[in-house]
Amino acid sequence: MSHNSFGYLFRVTTWGESHGPAIGCVVDGCPPGLRFSEDELQQWLDKRKPGQSRFVTQRREADLVRVLSGAMPQEDGTFISTGTPISLMIENTDQRSKDYSEIARRFRPGHADYTYDVKYGIRDYRGGGRSSARETATRVAAGGLARKVVPGLKVRGALVRIGEHEIDRSRWDWDAIDSNPFFAPDPEIVPVWENYLDDIRKKGSSVGAVIEIVAEGVPAGIGAPVYAKLDQDIASNLMSINAVKGVEIGNGFAAAKITGEANADEMRIGADGKPQFLSNNAGGILGGIATGEPVVARFAVKPTSSILTERRSVDADGNEVDVRTKGRHDPCVGIRAVPIGEAMVACAIADHYLRDRGQTGRLT
Amino acid sequence: MSHNSFGYLFRVTTWGESHGPAIGCVVDGCPPGLRFSEDELQQWLDKRKPGQSRFVTQRREADLVRVLSGAMPQEDGTFISTGTPISLMIENTDQRSKDYSEIARRFRPGHADYTYDVKYGIRDYRGGGRSSARETATRVAAGGLARKVVPGLKVRGALVRIGEHEIDRSRWDWDAIDSNPFFAPDPEIVPVWENYLDDIRKKGSSVGAVIEIVAEGVPAGIGAPVYAKLDQDIASNLMSINAVKGVEIGNGFAAAKITGEANADEMRIGADGKPQFLSNNAGGILGGIATGEPVVARFAVKPTSSILTERRSVDADGNEVDVRTKGRHDPCVGIRAVPIGEAMVACAIADHYLRDRGQTGRLT
Amino acid sequence: MSHNSFGYLFRVTTWGESHGPAIGCVVDGCPPGLRFSEDELQQWLDKRKPGQSRFVTQRREADLVRVLSGAMPQEDGTFISTGTPISLMIENTDQRSKDYSEIARRFRPGHADYTYDVKYGIRDYRGGGRSSARETATRVAAGGLARKVVPGLKVRGALVRIGEHEIDRSRWDWDAIDSNPFFAPDPEIVPVWENYLDDIRKKGSSVGAVIEIVAEGVPAGIGAPVYAKLDQDIASNLMSINAVKGVEIGNGFAAAKITGEANADEMRIGADGKPQFLSNNAGGILGGIATGEPVVARFAVKPTSSILTERRSVDADGNEVDVRTKGRHDPCVGIRAVPIGEAMVACAIADHYLRDRGQTGRLT
Amino acid sequence: MSHNSFGYLFRVTTWGESHGPAIGCVVDGCPPGLRFSEDELQQWLDKRKPGQSRFVTQRREADLVRVLSGAMPQEDGTFISTGTPISLMIENTDQRSKDYSEIARRFRPGHADYTYDVKYGIRDYRGGGRSSARETATRVAAGGLARKVVPGLKVRGALVRIGEHEIDRSRWDWDAIDSNPFFAPDPEIVPVWENYLDDIRKKGSSVGAVIEIVAEGVPAGIGAPVYAKLDQDIASNLMSINAVKGVEIGNGFAAAKITGEANADEMRIGADGKPQFLSNNAGGILGGIATGEPVVARFAVKPTSSILTERRSVDADGNEVDVRTKGRHDPCVGIRAVPIGEAMVACAIADHYLRDRGQTGRLT
Repeated sequence: MSHNSFGYLFRVTTWGESHGPAIGCVVDGCPPGLRFSEDELQQWLDKRKPGQSRFVTQRREADLVRVLSGAMPQEDGTFISTGTPISLMIENTDQRSKDYSEIARRFRPGHADYTYDVKYGIRDYRGGGRSSARETATRVAAGGLARKVVPGLKVRGALVRIGEHEIDRSRWDWDAIDSNPFFAPDPEIVPVWENYLDDIRKKGSSVGAVIEIVAEGVPAGIGAPVYAKLDQDIASNLMSINAVKGVEIGNGFAAAKITGEANADEMRIGADGKPQFLSNNAGGILGGIATGEPVVARFAVKPTSSILTERRSVDADGNEVDVRTKGRHDPCVGIRAVPIGEAMVACAIADHYLRDRGQTGRLT
Repeated sequence: MSHNSFGYLFRVTTWGESHGPAIGCVVDGCPPGLRFSEDELQQWLDKRKPGQSRFVTQRREADLVRVLSGAMPQEDGTFISTGTPISLMIENTDQRSKDYSEIARRFRPGHADYTYDVKYGIRDYRGGGRSSARETATRVAAGGLARKVVPGLKVRGALVRIGEHEIDRSRWDWDAIDSNPFFAPDPEIVPVWENYLDDIRKKGSSVGAVIEIVAEGVPAGIGAPVYAKLDQDIASNLMSINAVKGVEIGNGFAAAKITGEANADEMRIGADGKPQFLSNNAGGILGGIATGEPVVARFAVKPTSSILTERRSVDADGNEVDVRTKGRHDPCVGIRAVPIGEAMVACAIADHYLRDRGQTGRLT
Repeated sequence: MSHNSFGYLFRVTTWGESHGPAIGCVVDGCPPGLRFSEDELQQWLDKRKPGQSRFVTQRREADLVRVLSGAMPQEDGTFISTGTPISLMIENTDQRSKDYSEIARRFRPGHADYTYDVKYGIRDYRGGGRSSARETATRVAAGGLARKVVPGLKVRGALVRIGEHEIDRSRWDWDAIDSNPFFAPDPEIVPVWENYLDDIRKKGSSVGAVIEIVAEGVPAGIGAPVYAKLDQDIASNLMSINAVKGVEIGNGFAAAKITGEANADEMRIGADGKPQFLSNNAGGILGGIATGEPVVARFAVKPTSSILTERRSVDADGNEVDVRTKGRHDPCVGIRAVPIGEAMVACAIADHYLRDRGQTGRLT
Repeated sequence: MSHNSFGYLFRVTTWGESHGPAIGCVVDGCPPGLRFSEDELQQWLDKRKPGQSRFVTQRREADLVRVLSGAMPQEDGTFISTGTPISLMIENTDQRSKDYSEIARRFRPGHADYTYDVKYGIRDYRGGGRSSARETATRVAAGGLARKVVPGLKVRGALVRIGEHEIDRSRWDWDAIDSNPFFAPDPEIVPVWENYLDDIRKKGSSVGAVIEIVAEGVPAGIGAPVYAKLDQDIASNLMSINAVKGVEIGNGFAAAKITGEANADEMRIGADGKPQFLSNNAGGILGGIATGEPVVARFAVKPTSSILTERRSVDADGNEVDVRTKGRHDPCVGIRAVPIGEAMVACAIADHYLRDRGQTGRLT
């Protein structure tokens, strides 16, 4: 994973800070001939957009994505990709002009302020600069293209835990996802989370979350057995999202607790005469290569460190200070991580699809 | 992460199958002037070597590593790196000549046999081929070099869970690690694990594990805030190890359950006048960049799928078959994953050390 | 060399087509703490800008470069790089709305129209699309940053041949470069070239050129001996410029004609007690590594294929057609290639400077 | 171009020094299912092997290549690639044990001794170490695999100039190549070169050369228009060969001297109803993408700097010394560069073939 890019044949490079004029990304390697529109990309961005409920930051950004290159505009307003780099840009419109002098030299606990300062000796402290979650908007836009690369690919995400409260998986209902502000697949958890988060929010506190991403239509055989593992690249992509502290594939850490008999997915010949798996503990990936079953990944997002309670810290001059975050914040950044996680998984799958096609000539 | 390589400036490319003449790796980008010996590398390999207790596979390999390039032999038998690629080779000596015709076309459940076949259309079925854990020996050798790149770096690992039984962290004792066959940091868990694994082994079963890696002496400031995140690259490296299904940094998935107040590590000025952290929930990494605190990573290893119990499967000809694994196997592959995990973490840190030195000119 | 990027630690990714809304690049890996201004970058762009004399294309673009990320704006209007990706954008302002239907399906001889169509099956035919020399403006902007990475680096270029007329090297005068429309280092060649090119221009013809780039202040020791050769990466960078058909380092192809005695540069200890070279046939690079002498590279640019004379061709429907280029064109694209070549050499040197600093810890 | 590797999907990493135990390479990304044998690879190595005539170095190496991984041995002694990394090794057998103390600290003019020392501070001085042309044997082996990746690809090379004497292109005869010790395509130049080189050799001198590589069967459409240009990657690969000082594609530097009318290759519809070019000044590449015409590249090799005449130099201790090279040497290293150039061009084409297949899905 290099610099500010990810992917190998479907390669995304992102740029931009929270309070600069714009953020954006360059998607290099997108196959030619894909039809898409700014509206389609926008629908994914809108899922991630701040200010949509009281449970996410009230920063208001239009977050309008614009296609600057790599695609021929068509008469109906859509684009067709030409195989050249697709540049996507989102202007920053809600850069409140405020006085940053206070935080310019103070290290907010749990943030990258201190480490950034050590590494670079200079830091764009305005709104978190490059470390702001705002950067993730560009990934969501890139993910909108990635979803088109693999025919039949469907990538969906859901929030499965907020703080102490986990969903009941027996009630899993994909149709519920978009009818609540949490992307919760369990309708009965919604009021629980609402009460819980309202309390967190009113206290100026925050709480962590776990997100699950499920990708269907992943062609069996993509990935690689040792280093360009599909699960490895998915894990890498998800770990690059702000505040993520853990990733697991299939039954993940639970696999550590059980026996080989309980864990290995058995196979039989299906009604269609093709091999089929009788379970999916592997999360759709064996030996780094897709089995054709749904790819299942989960990741843990820590509670945002921007809270109202005063915390002990230091400043760049070596003084001990107490820091508390004023202004807009996310009581649970994990909510908005759902579309981001979807995008990152879609990008990894698109990349491996193209890589496999390159090396083996399958998947035409 | 590309092909069969990992790392960017400290770049490791591995090659080899379980039953070919040899396995090996090329370490490209190792700084010049590092003194090392084959014996030093060997000590790490010996930690991973099969056949050292009844709890690991009885395959017997001398696993002797040989330096083929990139270093000047000195009169005392050591080498000094020259800055050119270091080629390390380990000959395969215990390739039991046996009849593989039975498994050549059968897909072992939980193994990469099926996915490999779908992807490549051809598979080296002898002993798992490229997917064999044998490949990991080369990583351990490369890790031996990585440990030398960063002055003062100390990377250690421990087994913290086998199946249902977890250690008691209050009893953590690094000195206990090497005095039991499990790399257990908790001496009192040892008899528990022995009984438990003896039972597993006798049944021809297997069980998963969790490994924790702790790296001390990681210079604050290495890593990067968005994509070349230190935690991301550690996660990627660990996920590339066979059978790993989950990775977490610091308090990991537990961070999802708590509040921002409980999670964010506060800071004060230490007795030495320098900033210090009052806790290490972050696992030594904030915003993708090292804080200077110990880097803490954990990963989950699934139970090996090679078990004596018959499992339902299919073969390459579309027949339903029942498969059980005869011969040598690891009741808990997680044990030998400890030195592998150490090596992969060391490589990620060495790589980021050189990258940071390149970009910022710090860390001379 | 991957996709639409070049460089390894100083990595430039470009995007954009001739007639889209904008072109731009992302410079990733730029060290933090470098002070620069848009005006400084603009001065390099202005050297390349069309419409400055009757000998280059009359397309009129303001070509104003804008910094979108990766740098903190200072009160005096300058920027300081922060170590994050620097996004540079240049809006396309002179996109004459014209009817492209005629050339949309015709392949202009000597252009990439046909090959593009074969590869991608779709092509942005408006003004050459991605293959337009317009893309090179972004390289020149990136080169402006590269020049700042290496302390003391000075990269200059000159036109040494137009068509049949070569300069007299004995009259080489760097001070003459900017006082004629050709970047000619030989004042006496200027009237010769003016007459020659006026004739070419009036005929609607075009002619090739040779450019020489000289980089002073290149630290001895940067580069690498086998694959990341400094001369190799310079050659690669120069060959990526549109219309370039050949590259040479030092005495280049002339070295093929002479003996080892005549070619190898001898050394002596200089007055400063340090090794010095008595000649520079090597062009400042031995075994892929800089000697400390000026790095000298030359490249040949073919005559642009946009000419008024009708040429035989075919169209996408399999018809034989005759094509001639109407409208604005460059009688000698080699002229504007001078600042582009400078930029590409500067980028290669900046990249190797950072790479060497990373691997060896020298060059702090 | 990174480190000691080249190629993107067909990626070659080489290792080894002149006087270590072995040299070798890892070919990563080779498609599965390719049948090859060590004998086939050996035939290419034998073309490059020293000691085959009085015009090349008398160092005698068996240069036997061995396949260590990535391929299943078949009953008939051949291998079939499995898609995993192919490790190729050549043992060094003729390492004359001699006293290197004299050259250990002296910088041979024209060699990389001085630059190596500046960069790394340590140098394997034995026989040139990593900078020895011996490393190129591994490229030739890798090229043997590359030739198999693209169906119908035929890559041939010829020597077109030795010092002052160039071939007559009107007498070009590919059948003559293998019947003279120079890979000369012009039988009548052979006695001229013999006399000329005998004279050079007896004087202990050396002379440069120009090699031309022609690749037929390159599928139209491979390459890319801006940075992953096919000609750029060919140039990069050729420039990475020891002693190469210049590269050109098609009519190369000659294109700088002519007009657009003379240079651009016109097109017509051929008897087969397909577009065809009426000339090939472009050398088979337009805008970085293959036209389907033969790809033509030339490169200049400088005279080896190992000559009997004393040359002025310095040593690592700051003393002025006179150096002359004793022992075996190549009067014209350009001769053995022919199979190396072929291999490097074949590797670039194989890489782009796979890349194009990946991005566009063509070329199944």
